[in-house]
Amino acid sequence: MQNCIIASTSTIHGSGPLEYLFDALIELYKDSDQILFIPYARPGGISHDEYTIGVNNIFKKINKRILGVHMFPDIAEAFENTQGIFTGGGNTFLLVDQLYRNNVLEPLKRAIDSGIPYLGTSAGSNICGLTMQTTNDMPIVHPPSIKTLGIMPFNINAHYLDPNPKSTHKGETRETRIKEFHNLNPQPVVGLREGSWLRILDNNIILEGDLSARVFEQNKTPYEITSKSSLSALN
Amino acid sequence: MQNCIIASTSTIHGSGPLEYLFDALIELYKDSDQILFIPYARPGGISHDEYTIGVNNIFKKINKRILGVHMFPDIAEAFENTQGIFTGGGNTFLLVDQLYRNNVLEPLKRAIDSGIPYLGTSAGSNICGLTMQTTNDMPIVHPPSIKTLGIMPFNINAHYLDPNPKSTHKGETRETRIKEFHNLNPQPVVGLREGSWLRILDNNIILEGDLSARVFEQNKTPYEITSKSSLSALN
Repeated sequence: MQNCIIASTSTIHGSGPLEYLFDALIELYKDSDQILFIPYARPGGISHDEYTIGVNNIFKKINKRILGVHMFPDIAEAFENTQGIFTGGGNTFLLVDQLYRNNVLEPLKRAIDSGIPYLGTSAGSNICGLTMQTTNDMPIVHPPSIKTLGIMPFNINAHYLDPNPKSTHKGETRETRIKEFHNLNPQPVVGLREGSWLRILDNNIILEGDLSARVFEQNKTPYEITSKSSLSALN
Repeated sequence: MQNCIIASTSTIHGSGPLEYLFDALIELYKDSDQILFIPYARPGGISHDEYTIGVNNIFKKINKRILGVHMFPDIAEAFENTQGIFTGGGNTFLLVDQLYRNNVLEPLKRAIDSGIPYLGTSAGSNICGLTMQTTNDMPIVHPPSIKTLGIMPFNINAHYLDPNPKSTHKGETRETRIKEFHNLNPQPVVGLREGSWLRILDNNIILEGDLSARVFEQNKTPYEITSKSSLSALN
């Protein structure tokens, strides 16, 4: 019943914000004129209002209006008649913290499960996994829990980066970090490169975009899946 | 009264583990034959025993013996007669979680404040700041608190990386992440590049190594400090 686009990034190199997704968004939001925006992740620390205004200016290009969830005195009301939802990127810890503190997690999950079209980018995609534990972000706040929406039966690593064989840097690679995660946690992780997204529709999860994705399962060698592959059986 | 080396990394490119620090460690641990090692950060997911054995093999080269804190049935006993302490790198969330759950944070702080020589590398350095919030690591576990030892009146960003002007990647730079941190938190952050360390002795904090460090203060433009600068006034 879910109808989602779970994107690695809002913006790819050499293109405006969300531009690479416009065709997919016109299809996703074909019956939605007004979209509920969740600005809690505050990229670069911008305010909820600034973020919402910026996103509205982008969505104008595909003839959609944006309303920020923070503009509603009552959260239930925000979700009551919404035709579509978008959670933008920024800091995943801050996003999850605010989802808990403002009691948005439950109505958001109910809305997505009822089939309301949902777009997540970056942090807004991380929250669709089982937990936010494979975020790349800094813990700038301490959320009450790391459990997230569980729209998919696995976790996401957004902005996935391959190890650079020429690097002289000794900080952990993304692959090492995910290996450390799997030492303590069982759920699979899908490393989504910038330009990739997951399309969830009619109980299918399909990898979209031009690139392959990297899948990490506990106690297995990581492997690549090509665009248009199904991830429905991954759990 | 503190006597610490707070290093960005255990290993620099082209050199063995801790090798670049051997001269400094011979001085730091001049009166310590036996060193208490805290292996909780488990780099790459290795066990406490494996990590301790590996570190012992390195410390043999400077004629020191290593005992892992996990080898003691009683934590108080581990700290009772210790002549020196080393906390190694790995995952900062896991390290902090284990420090809390095993009640090591308080005896560790008392030992450092009493002047017992302390070495931290990477995650083991992050815990010397006010909070662990400027770690680069993944939240593979959810520690009960993000408050850390507060040996220095600021936070560390270990393995500090400058933004790459040629990058096409859209994930946040380290500088953007620290800016997002400062949007919500007041404490300064010292970005320590690999090869740099802080020497804390007689209430002074001095930047050591060949490189400059980058200092981030809330509502200020970030700035560089050169090697041998004092950070004692930063708070």
